[in-house]
Amino acid sequence: MNPTKVYGGIDLGGTTINIGLITQDGEIVAEKRCASKVEDGVDHVLDQIILIIRDLIAPAGKQFSLQVLGIGTAGNVNIEKGILIEATNFPNWHNIPIGMELEKRLHIPVFVDNDANVAAIGEHAYGAGRGVSEMLMVTLGTGVGGGLILRGKIYRGSNGVAGEFGHTVIQQNGPICGCGRNGCVEAFIGTRGIIQNVRTRLESGRKSLLNKIESEKMTPKDISEAAQKGDTVAIEVFRDVGSYLGIALGNVANLLNIERVVVSGGVAKAGEFILKSAREYLSRTALKIPGETIQVHLSTLGDRAGMVGAARLAMLEGDPK
Amino acid sequence: MNPTKVYGGIDLGGTTINIGLITQDGEIVAEKRCASKVEDGVDHVLDQIILIIRDLIAPAGKQFSLQVLGIGTAGNVNIEKGILIEATNFPNWHNIPIGMELEKRLHIPVFVDNDANVAAIGEHAYGAGRGVSEMLMVTLGTGVGGGLILRGKIYRGSNGVAGEFGHTVIQQNGPICGCGRNGCVEAFIGTRGIIQNVRTRLESGRKSLLNKIESEKMTPKDISEAAQKGDTVAIEVFRDVGSYLGIALGNVANLLNIERVVVSGGVAKAGEFILKSAREYLSRTALKIPGETIQVHLSTLGDRAGMVGAARLAMLEGDPK
Repeated sequence: MNPTKVYGGIDLGGTTINIGLITQDGEIVAEKRCASKVEDGVDHVLDQIILIIRDLIAPAGKQFSLQVLGIGTAGNVNIEKGILIEATNFPNWHNIPIGMELEKRLHIPVFVDNDANVAAIGEHAYGAGRGVSEMLMVTLGTGVGGGLILRGKIYRGSNGVAGEFGHTVIQQNGPICGCGRNGCVEAFIGTRGIIQNVRTRLESGRKSLLNKIESEKMTPKDISEAAQKGDTVAIEVFRDVGSYLGIALGNVANLLNIERVVVSGGVAKAGEFILKSAREYLSRTALKIPGETIQVHLSTLGDRAGMVGAARLAMLEGDPK
Repeated sequence: MNPTKVYGGIDLGGTTINIGLITQDGEIVAEKRCASKVEDGVDHVLDQIILIIRDLIAPAGKQFSLQVLGIGTAGNVNIEKGILIEATNFPNWHNIPIGMELEKRLHIPVFVDNDANVAAIGEHAYGAGRGVSEMLMVTLGTGVGGGLILRGKIYRGSNGVAGEFGHTVIQQNGPICGCGRNGCVEAFIGTRGIIQNVRTRLESGRKSLLNKIESEKMTPKDISEAAQKGDTVAIEVFRDVGSYLGIALGNVANLLNIERVVVSGGVAKAGEFILKSAREYLSRTALKIPGETIQVHLSTLGDRAGMVGAARLAMLEGDPK
């Protein structure tokens, strides 16, 4: 029996590594996730990745032929050279030639890109962006990331850093953002901005389930759970998040006339609480034609988008016909 | 002698029509401009265009072989069908199949696009955008238009209406824009916003050369002349214009990581008064890498950008190899 051709994808995050094998059709035939333990150093993490991949490609009774490998990583990436330049959650990792290192050990081509780009590639090929040519992927989390599919292909811009949707300024002199600027959309809808929004409401004396949680320990998950229980503070905060997201998406609609926005990430679990108001403000901000065209969907691949997208990236780059 | 191959371009505006012939290298070999007189009706305007083109292609002692014709027009355009859907400055023109009409009479292929797109194509091929792959054209006037070159080609989006840079919201609940929304960049830096800015300063009792001009009759040209004479009100207003333009460009830089912005239009004549502060605010708004990459230039084709770009559009579409 001929071994099944598969494409490997790695989603390398600050806390978790997702590794999987997919077929040409995007079916996940094997996957494993583990803690990333970046503090143990690059070599340790790479050793662990290699071990898992060897394990995945030769399960009992089956055989997979691994063609190429893709990696999506947090942080700044030199895509051409496959170098992880730096990442906030990887404190001592600087200029790591992660692509070359894995190529040397695995003897297959390896392609590296940032996490939002591979998530966009994954959702576009096999998820909530299937069949559209123009798409924006928005990843909601501590930061707010973005990846653009334009004319059916990932769009990287002049230096490979396009897609920084989170740093769209929507309010001059607005609240300070993690990037040091003021009024970025991330300052409003990144985790910090969301928690701050809750805090402001609680400090004004509002009743809320969230009063029970120490504000330093509060997470978007807590707010999401409160919203699901009908907590008005939580619901209002998510409505706010949606409004800022909607305005920023309206600007993208006007500039790029895209068909689809796919939203993923931790906060996206608050789903319709956010998306309802996002759609409302998007439609207020967008002009008629781009506003009627653009649709906002939740991710369907969820936290597998990066892994699947990394494998798809490798499939496209390694076999570009 | 073989006739020289030429490509025709028409810039159809609310007040003026520019018609010209260019060679493959972008050299203008003949051109003529006339009043558009849209109130005389479509047939009259088309007759006039045909007359001028016949005149231009057969001057005394020379002969040009017209290959294809491009038209850039104000308003909404159905690019595929060559239909001018509607335009603010063409009151009784609705759904005019302008491309087909001219094809019938001239027996050559005719391509239609909107004015900002053809200006982008023109500046990219032969003007201030030469040699770059990722570019935004910004046209400053009554409205603020935009045209995007991405991966070296005009980017039109899903319905052909991409590029609406003027309707980037940069201030929630900001001043009302001509599009009916609030806080669009056009509300600040379109002609109306600029005049309003002057008026507010004059009403507060400021001394200015502009006090001599009735505010209903004031034009950006008046403000530009005052600025050149050192008038502080005029200079401050242009600095404001630059700041809003800069913030909106910073957002584009972050999202698209483009290399070049080309600015044209009436207000662009105020040149460095605007561009200096635009660059300053752009660099404050943009992230490090996209901010270091993006450059803002004034148009070099000036009011010929549309005509030259329309001819170039026809050259590209009519002979796409």
